[in-house]
Amino acid sequence: MSADQPDRAETRPAMRDALVSAAVALFAEHGFDATTVDDIVARAGVGRRSFFRYFPSKESVVFPDHEGTLARMSDFLADESGFAQDPVARVCDAARMVLAMYAADPEFSLARYKLTRQVPALRTHELAVVRRYESALAAFLRARYSGRADGDLRADVVSAAVVAAHNHALRGWLRSDGHGDPAELVEHALEWVRATYTDDVPSAPRTAEPEEDVMVVVARRGTPMWRVVQRVQEALD
Amino acid sequence: MSADQPDRAETRPAMRDALVSAAVALFAEHGFDATTVDDIVARAGVGRRSFFRYFPSKESVVFPDHEGTLARMSDFLADESGFAQDPVARVCDAARMVLAMYAADPEFSLARYKLTRQVPALRTHELAVVRRYESALAAFLRARYSGRADGDLRADVVSAAVVAAHNHALRGWLRSDGHGDPAELVEHALEWVRATYTDDVPSAPRTAEPEEDVMVVVARRGTPMWRVVQRVQEALD
Repeated sequence: MSADQPDRAETRPAMRDALVSAAVALFAEHGFDATTVDDIVARAGVGRRSFFRYFPSKESVVFPDHEGTLARMSDFLADESGFAQDPVARVCDAARMVLAMYAADPEFSLARYKLTRQVPALRTHELAVVRRYESALAAFLRARYSGRADGDLRADVVSAAVVAAHNHALRGWLRSDGHGDPAELVEHALEWVRATYTDDVPSAPRTAEPEEDVMVVVARRGTPMWRVVQRVQEALD
Repeated sequence: MSADQPDRAETRPAMRDALVSAAVALFAEHGFDATTVDDIVARAGVGRRSFFRYFPSKESVVFPDHEGTLARMSDFLADESGFAQDPVARVCDAARMVLAMYAADPEFSLARYKLTRQVPALRTHELAVVRRYESALAAFLRARYSGRADGDLRADVVSAAVVAAHNHALRGWLRSDGHGDPAELVEHALEWVRATYTDDVPSAPRTAEPEEDVMVVVARRGTPMWRVVQRVQEALD
């Protein structure tokens, strides 16, 4: 999916790249708190105003691709061609755009992870960024669930669950110092959430009619739903 | 439940209360950014060092009860008498302790909500606080799900879902300017999440055997699980 691939030429012109590289190198050498914006622009060889043209704060230089990814995610969710898709599957696809951003530059992502663990201000900044992704997903789901009982509640819970699953997998990959395929980890986690909340199961293309194979479940009325489901699941397995 | 009731005498001695009142009044009168810690201590009639004895920052004075609630929540989750309870129901009970804190002082909670909407620094501070609640719930669930396939993933997703549902209901109440019973709203939202994720359904006390009332489900093998569940649900309704 082309929308999954950050357009680095567009979102990171050379000066912006130079500022990010200088900042990350200085934070690693002297620590985040001891490094000033003046230190960063001196290392990058650009003027102070250039820094603030690209970044509103010293924190934001550590997360240079989030604004672009947020914008692409909004476009993706607003694209009407996706309205035929199950809404939960759609927000899972949107979440994968964040993963793609991290996976596009593993070295930078791992360095940032180490830095973020050490600097509370960066962790807090990251929470605010994650919240914006979650809000974008929730807004999309609220619209899709409008008119449905508990639609807003469902939208908020599903978007939180999708973000939690995505971040669980992403964090696992970062913590392992980038071992394994992050896309596989995220795939597994998102599928777990999608299976819980999806209710429009896309019909798989069928080439042949399956054999008639009848299953019968007999249950006493009053049997708890979870028990019925468990027995049916066992029979299907 | 006594653990649900903030012990205000213990967590808010008079000087602490005076600082909170002075701060909230000044923030309302002059705005958060224009108010300094010196202004707050002058209004409260105490020394500057007293402020920092109780609060690490100007932001934290707006959330004076969260530390106490976090500590009570940790005690509640560590209490082994709760280990017989379904883990999802247990974290829902823990989340209700946050609601109890907000509901104990509606006037303060509503004033804080208005202030927080206006000040980005407070919203960010609040996100960090919410994250600590969520981490406490996730740590509890990770321990309860240990050894289970995808236990950590499940713990992270369920705790995020519980927090999202709780905050959805709490926010709805705050946005409505405190109309209605927040406990009912939270109850409904948490029950929605509990029903999704719980798998140890507590057996209800039975006083009489229900009538024999047999339900039969017939399904072709290969029928999607969601369709079987839908039909069973319809039959049970």
